[in-house]
Amino acid sequence: MKNRIITISREFGSGGRTIGKETAAKLSIPCYDEELIEKIAEKSGLAREYVRERGEYAPTTGWIGNALAERDYSGHSLRDELWNAQRSVILELAEKEPCVIVGRCADYILKDAADCLTVFIHASMKKRAERIVQVYGEREETPEKRLTDKDKRRRAYYQLYTDMIWGEAKNYQLALDSGILGIDRCVKIIAEQF
Amino acid sequence: MKNRIITISREFGSGGRTIGKETAAKLSIPCYDEELIEKIAEKSGLAREYVRERGEYAPTTGWIGNALAERDYSGHSLRDELWNAQRSVILELAEKEPCVIVGRCADYILKDAADCLTVFIHASMKKRAERIVQVYGEREETPEKRLTDKDKRRRAYYQLYTDMIWGEAKNYQLALDSGILGIDRCVKIIAEQF
Repeated sequence: MKNRIITISREFGSGGRTIGKETAAKLSIPCYDEELIEKIAEKSGLAREYVRERGEYAPTTGWIGNALAERDYSGHSLRDELWNAQRSVILELAEKEPCVIVGRCADYILKDAADCLTVFIHASMKKRAERIVQVYGEREETPEKRLTDKDKRRRAYYQLYTDMIWGEAKNYQLALDSGILGIDRCVKIIAEQF
Repeated sequence: MKNRIITISREFGSGGRTIGKETAAKLSIPCYDEELIEKIAEKSGLAREYVRERGEYAPTTGWIGNALAERDYSGHSLRDELWNAQRSVILELAEKEPCVIVGRCADYILKDAADCLTVFIHASMKKRAERIVQVYGEREETPEKRLTDKDKRRRAYYQLYTDMIWGEAKNYQLALDSGILGIDRCVKIIAEQF
């Protein structure tokens, strides 16, 4: 019998990570988010910062060109290496026990390999801007600029590796607006479907 | 104080209409679906069949060309007339009392006019194909062909009148896969957020 896994895709600043952690705590199962970066870095030999940044985000400019330029003569690139490590860490975790996995295209990676509850968490620009200032503090760029940039790069990454459209309702069993529903309600809805 | 309204957008064959009716029954509030067609026909003087078909679906071919060709010298078209009647009926209903409204771009029409819980119901092609054969019976065309056609026309209609992308998770507070979650769970989740 396959383990039941909750995958949480989320917009930056939507509180998806907090929702993942609280859902896991409520269900007494592990939640993989930062721990995932650790494991992927270990498996691939790549630096943690590289894994954190490039395992979910396309680079800032010339992404497709970049991706091709980064490949060596065998057509292989560091980014593909990272994707393979990410994929195998996620598959191993899902094999071991029921858990929550935040981000990193886990929904796509586990598609045919596990019994998944696939969740997408989003919120309005206004709510997310408030949240990132509250959680990560002020930066030189406006919160709106930071969000637009992150959204764009996460979407590009997702589409390149999964061939699915990021944020399309049909890709998820549950898509929730955390800005309207609030963190607690989202946790309750998700946990009840487990 | 504005009334609280549940708007249900749905893919054809996803059971969204049934979910709307059952949610309304559970909350003891009215559900407008067929009744909406009746009211819009009355208000506009247009035939019920025209309202049913053209109030949610783009025509089968040459939709944009058609829409322009249908306009008279003042730039006005029957379809715009229908849209205006639809809009004013929905606004009036929302003004009156809390209710569930199924389809007809109610989410967009009520955007700034009411306190809405906006819901999108979807399901896989396979589940929807099973459902439409069960509910509406066999037709000459395969269920998959019927679904693809309906999806395409509903999406085109929605985008022309609302300037939003149909089925994008961000447009809805709740987006639910009725094929996986089942009708009863969807009703429960929606009713609990009311």
